[in-house]
Amino acid sequence: MIFKEIVMIGAGNVAQQLAKSLWQKGHRIVQVYNRTQRKGEHLAQQIDSTAVSRYKALYRSADLYIIAVKDDAIQAVSDQLSSVLQSSQMVVHVSGATPSTVLAKHFERYGIFYPLQTFSSGDPMDFNQIPLCIYASKAEDEVNLLSLAEQLSEFVYRLDDTQRTNLHVAAVFANNFTTHLFHIAQQILEKEDIPFQILMPIIQKTVSKLTSLSAKDALTGPARRKDFQTIQKHQSVLDTYPAFRAIYDELTDSILQTYPNT
Amino acid sequence: MIFKEIVMIGAGNVAQQLAKSLWQKGHRIVQVYNRTQRKGEHLAQQIDSTAVSRYKALYRSADLYIIAVKDDAIQAVSDQLSSVLQSSQMVVHVSGATPSTVLAKHFERYGIFYPLQTFSSGDPMDFNQIPLCIYASKAEDEVNLLSLAEQLSEFVYRLDDTQRTNLHVAAVFANNFTTHLFHIAQQILEKEDIPFQILMPIIQKTVSKLTSLSAKDALTGPARRKDFQTIQKHQSVLDTYPAFRAIYDELTDSILQTYPNT
Repeated sequence: MIFKEIVMIGAGNVAQQLAKSLWQKGHRIVQVYNRTQRKGEHLAQQIDSTAVSRYKALYRSADLYIIAVKDDAIQAVSDQLSSVLQSSQMVVHVSGATPSTVLAKHFERYGIFYPLQTFSSGDPMDFNQIPLCIYASKAEDEVNLLSLAEQLSEFVYRLDDTQRTNLHVAAVFANNFTTHLFHIAQQILEKEDIPFQILMPIIQKTVSKLTSLSAKDALTGPARRKDFQTIQKHQSVLDTYPAFRAIYDELTDSILQTYPNT
Repeated sequence: MIFKEIVMIGAGNVAQQLAKSLWQKGHRIVQVYNRTQRKGEHLAQQIDSTAVSRYKALYRSADLYIIAVKDDAIQAVSDQLSSVLQSSQMVVHVSGATPSTVLAKHFERYGIFYPLQTFSSGDPMDFNQIPLCIYASKAEDEVNLLSLAEQLSEFVYRLDDTQRTNLHVAAVFANNFTTHLFHIAQQILEKEDIPFQILMPIIQKTVSKLTSLSAKDALTGPARRKDFQTIQKHQSVLDTYPAFRAIYDELTDSILQTYPNT
């Protein structure tokens, strides 16, 4: 094991899941840092670690520091870390939306360890099935990070900052926005006393199709087949839902433009 | 069996799947009508039936006529049927987007037998898991249609025209539009040489969450947590994709409005 001693900064969802997975694979999390001592201790107890809540108490000779805090706190944490660590120490963060370069101000050896998944509290994740996106400023560190990631997950990708930012945007379309569309569908059904359950088979089919067809080929429906009569019917149904109607029109236009000749 | 003799009008995807399922459950499809004789015969051969391609040759004393043709042809088929059938005969169509009343012009006993699924050619469906939406103009026929549907599927719903039209709109959001978002995500990834495969775990999680959480509660991401810094980053990534940027903004605004206080 290249990174013999790891310090986890943060004790939220991602920090917990990642620290436990690393510990289960035999890695030593020498310390958990968290602003709230008790929250840090709660995690530390589960992984034979100790918790600290002040940067001055931070263990200073770990091989890897993992910043697993909210995106908007990463810069501040990095600033704090620089007051107790050497610039030659290895620091990574786990964010999809934050460039690795926010760490470059203080550290020469920095990188990314980004698990692409939607984490919910109290919902233990099988890291084995979570894609891990890796990057490091130094080639040698990257080799080691990649090998660490491969111990946790079957799906390890090497992505630079531009790739990872684009991936994060793509994930917003594929996860957040689709969930919002499910919520819109649910509201339309609720008003008609139809249980959302009725849509689950078609939703599951929508996703399972992607294993055999490209999304482009999988698309069906009125906009795909240029069935303007049905589109007009839908638009009049949506006259009572102006907010949904705007989304319907935007996405319908986009589909019409995507399949111009069919 | 109440509907002892059934005639299937059409031999496309839905007609094929439905006719085969009915036949497998022991129902007798006495005839398949299709404009193209050969296509009708292909289906008829698989279900011990015979095919005709002229309305004059239509079997006139069946208990149920199922119109399973494209939406925009239903009215014309109904007109043709009226030239050979009695107005007291039972006629249903299988469309989600077409009101049952298009059949009322010629028939007193009309109804709906609408399977809510995305049908693709050559992809045999297990009707058992497909929601069937039933309606009939006469209460007694509806009882019989419901019992026919229950032989095919675990999930049978009684929906009137307004409910079914709203369901069809909801399904466009939950199936067509989500598929289009997956396609957008794929295009963003392709330009960065990232395989779409990387998104499959988060997409699967997005759907499996719906079994334990409402879509409203399941939503995560920058718009949900009012992370305007990340939203701005995403918008600048999307500056090179104006069409996607418009969809991003529309859906982000809708999420911001849906969760005003969080």
